[in-house]
Amino acid sequence: MQHNTPDLNDQSTDSGTATRERIVEAARDLFFKQGYTATGIAQILSTAEANSGSLYHFFPSKEDLLIAVLAKYRTMLEPRVLRPAFDRTDDSIQRLFAVLEGYRLLLEATNFELGCPIGNLALEVTNSQPEARRLIIENFKAWCDAIRGLIEDASDRLPSDIEPAGLATHVLATMEGSVMLARAYRSFEPFDEAVNQLKDYIRRLMRERTRTRTKRRKRK
Amino acid sequence: MQHNTPDLNDQSTDSGTATRERIVEAARDLFFKQGYTATGIAQILSTAEANSGSLYHFFPSKEDLLIAVLAKYRTMLEPRVLRPAFDRTDDSIQRLFAVLEGYRLLLEATNFELGCPIGNLALEVTNSQPEARRLIIENFKAWCDAIRGLIEDASDRLPSDIEPAGLATHVLATMEGSVMLARAYRSFEPFDEAVNQLKDYIRRLMRERTRTRTKRRKRK
Repeated sequence: MQHNTPDLNDQSTDSGTATRERIVEAARDLFFKQGYTATGIAQILSTAEANSGSLYHFFPSKEDLLIAVLAKYRTMLEPRVLRPAFDRTDDSIQRLFAVLEGYRLLLEATNFELGCPIGNLALEVTNSQPEARRLIIENFKAWCDAIRGLIEDASDRLPSDIEPAGLATHVLATMEGSVMLARAYRSFEPFDEAVNQLKDYIRRLMRERTRTRTKRRKRK
Repeated sequence: MQHNTPDLNDQSTDSGTATRERIVEAARDLFFKQGYTATGIAQILSTAEANSGSLYHFFPSKEDLLIAVLAKYRTMLEPRVLRPAFDRTDDSIQRLFAVLEGYRLLLEATNFELGCPIGNLALEVTNSQPEARRLIIENFKAWCDAIRGLIEDASDRLPSDIEPAGLATHVLATMEGSVMLARAYRSFEPFDEAVNQLKDYIRRLMRERTRTRTKRRKRK
């Protein structure tokens, strides 16, 4: 077996940073499309057009690479998940559903092959990978925080006893479950049914708030 | 490599049926604990204490074994998922949440290692396995039908414009998403938050129905 010469100075140079980034992007793409376990180091190397020396220099283990991929996803939340959805509307409730619509568009674009990358990795990462697990939780929490922010922005349109953090977690669970069902069915039907029911819930919450307000006004 | 003598008459005898069942149970258990892809035929054979001849006689491919496992799950829905939950209460809304509680108990008993077996397999089965996909959908649909039945039984306590099938799919998505999050976090916190929010939704639906009824009575 022939080894390429590792460039151990990679790290401190621009081309080193570029190589590292190319490796992370290749790993991210392959983990997303095939899963973490199913992806081999050789395939990452050939996709990234990197040599094994560079890879082992930056990432001594496959788990180190997974950690870098999860850290990358964390930085992608704002520009890739939230911004495109927020650009479509100024209304915070509509923004929430635009975020969910983003996953529907991804399912559509990939013919149901790809869903939520964090959800997939969450099911593959075991107890023996605490740092990767920590980053998966961090990704989920950042997603929930963004949704919680939208709910807080709409708080004057929702009943006062609605707890934004709990509702945000429910939205995340609905999204993950809906994506799973759409992929299993290879159909939007279960995704749309589950998300439309969430819309029904929020619509009723808003109606309840309006009703309470009307009542108060009548009493005055 | 030494081969054991295959018993090709297995199928037509009692011991053949027992061997087949032992293989399916071993595969089901291993797929559940490790995943379909990660489980090797050799491990199934050793767990089932079967020889490779019997296995290939009953299941010419690993996919045939997956199909048998999924068919087995379909028969387990009533006795293993619904019955234990239904035995705990006669109230149909409480039964719905008792089914969800069953998954919480499973997470607890396995220290978050095991969630919904169908959900896991759903993410592993690809477009190239149409028969397995069909059976995964059949399992999900049977689950939804049971939940829809509970919602229909409670229809006089819910607003008349609630569509039981859509709400049932939302319950399934919530369950799958909650189980995924609990496993990722290794904590009940996201599971409880998401399920409690579903309880809030259904509580408000029941309150809305009561309110409508009271109004109607007042009008009379």
